[in-house]
Amino acid sequence: MSRARARSQRPVAVVGTGVIGRSWIQVFARAGRETRVYDPDPIQARRALDWLAADLADAVAQGVMSRHAERELRRRVSLHPDLPSALSGVEYVQESGPERLEVKQAIYRELDRHAARRAVLASSTSALDMTRIADGLAGASRCIVAHPVNPPHVIPAVEVLPGAATTPAVVTRTCRLLSSLGQSPVLLRKYAVGFALNRMQAALVREAIDLVESGVTDVNGVDALIRDGLGLRWALLGPFGVGHGNADGGLREYYAKYGSAYIGLMNALNPATPSFDDAMVDRLATGTEKMEGSVKKIPQILAWRDRLVRELRTLKSGDPHP
Amino acid sequence: MSRARARSQRPVAVVGTGVIGRSWIQVFARAGRETRVYDPDPIQARRALDWLAADLADAVAQGVMSRHAERELRRRVSLHPDLPSALSGVEYVQESGPERLEVKQAIYRELDRHAARRAVLASSTSALDMTRIADGLAGASRCIVAHPVNPPHVIPAVEVLPGAATTPAVVTRTCRLLSSLGQSPVLLRKYAVGFALNRMQAALVREAIDLVESGVTDVNGVDALIRDGLGLRWALLGPFGVGHGNADGGLREYYAKYGSAYIGLMNALNPATPSFDDAMVDRLATGTEKMEGSVKKIPQILAWRDRLVRELRTLKSGDPHP
Repeated sequence: MSRARARSQRPVAVVGTGVIGRSWIQVFARAGRETRVYDPDPIQARRALDWLAADLADAVAQGVMSRHAERELRRRVSLHPDLPSALSGVEYVQESGPERLEVKQAIYRELDRHAARRAVLASSTSALDMTRIADGLAGASRCIVAHPVNPPHVIPAVEVLPGAATTPAVVTRTCRLLSSLGQSPVLLRKYAVGFALNRMQAALVREAIDLVESGVTDVNGVDALIRDGLGLRWALLGPFGVGHGNADGGLREYYAKYGSAYIGLMNALNPATPSFDDAMVDRLATGTEKMEGSVKKIPQILAWRDRLVRELRTLKSGDPHP
Repeated sequence: MSRARARSQRPVAVVGTGVIGRSWIQVFARAGRETRVYDPDPIQARRALDWLAADLADAVAQGVMSRHAERELRRRVSLHPDLPSALSGVEYVQESGPERLEVKQAIYRELDRHAARRAVLASSTSALDMTRIADGLAGASRCIVAHPVNPPHVIPAVEVLPGAATTPAVVTRTCRLLSSLGQSPVLLRKYAVGFALNRMQAALVREAIDLVESGVTDVNGVDALIRDGLGLRWALLGPFGVGHGNADGGLREYYAKYGSAYIGLMNALNPATPSFDDAMVDRLATGTEKMEGSVKKIPQILAWRDRLVRELRTLKSGDPHP
């Protein structure tokens, strides 16, 4: 993004600065956007900026960001003491507040009241329906869900889901803005519990838990089959793309040939929801701690994951899907 | 692997040379093993060796393999006109024949009759239970499932599943041999339809199909959420490792905190098996062809996938999980 282009753009606002909100700050500022930050809890907001400073310092230390770029990025971020000052003149608001309907509704009343007239009001919610959050709001037409994958400054996919009142123009502007940030917006047409991504994740996790609970394999076996097996393909192709590559005639031939095998297999899956009771959580957590080491190692594992995902994305953009 | 070490090892045999069998030839020969190849259909066997030559020529052209290494690798592969000559003196047999129980049983009778006394007889089957394949066989104790992910010369995970009669020593030898080839053996303790990997894949595919059929998103939306979202994490961490990183206190805290949310989400998944009828296959295939292009592009897409998976594995081995 050129400086002239960045100057001509209106600012954006990040409201709510937990783990997701702070990551969004980096997404916007890295893409050249003036990023205004507000959190009703000023200590949390300060912590988010401290995290940003530390994360960027790491990037400089690893040589993936220049000192100049780091300074420029941080200069684009400003902390605001109240909502009206954070929201004045913005083009887009990314809200990442608590996941309770009444709380979200109260936040959206405030956002709608204070945000510049044409600003899009987007929510990071992973669970709530914008039709209900924005119900009765004067500006319901500019409210939309933009649900990222944690952490959005590393993982690009964002689920975009309009509410019943959201205008098509707001959908288009949201997708365009997210794309300009380097994110991958995915438009959903209809609300479903968990949207799409977390439903697919839950389907796999349910089967993963069942494989351990029923004694087919252990925690490490499940994880190895994903990270050394299915995950290597899914980092490049989704389930339909993978199926398409499994027969010379593509998905059509593959499903025609193996449809009945799939039916048999799907019918054999255990449809029961795991209990998540103490004994189950203890068994799975003990296995996972044996595999991953002490919880004190988690920050190191996440730093490694983020580093490798970035390198993987560089690989993919350097050798794009034919 | 040193030449001295390779010379001291007994040969291995690949029986059946379809897409999976030919890929196994490359796995063994690349790791320095003398690899004997047999297929009852000599035209198929010849085609497998042609594929191997072409694939290695590509690797040389891309600069990821030296001409010398390519020549050495090909020298280790020999085509045999009959089973007794392919199996004499081998340490391990990787069978990749048709997936029908009676056919497999007939093959295993032959393998058990002709293979060197202590040879392991491993099957690439993705569906059949070794307890039934080897039922009544004199050498049932040396028979085992070693089910790879397609293609094994690119994707390392291998499901290892003993039959009721398989000895622990055969399990250990199989896992050790697969590890020495650079594969990732994952031991399963119990037979389940689809083993473990294809069950997890089917669970995700079922939900993916349901998301399209119910109109939540389209084929491209589903695939983008995996390749730009979940797949980027799953290439590095399995579902338990991912959950472990989602809370400071690891999986224990994560499941304790979000267990009830998971239960709600899992209860909301559609447990019905898709029909795989013509209309459904046509809808999904049409969407996939729109996304991936003509089926004529499939070989190019697979070459790209294999190239990037190799680079991703190089990244991972250069910066291993902390």
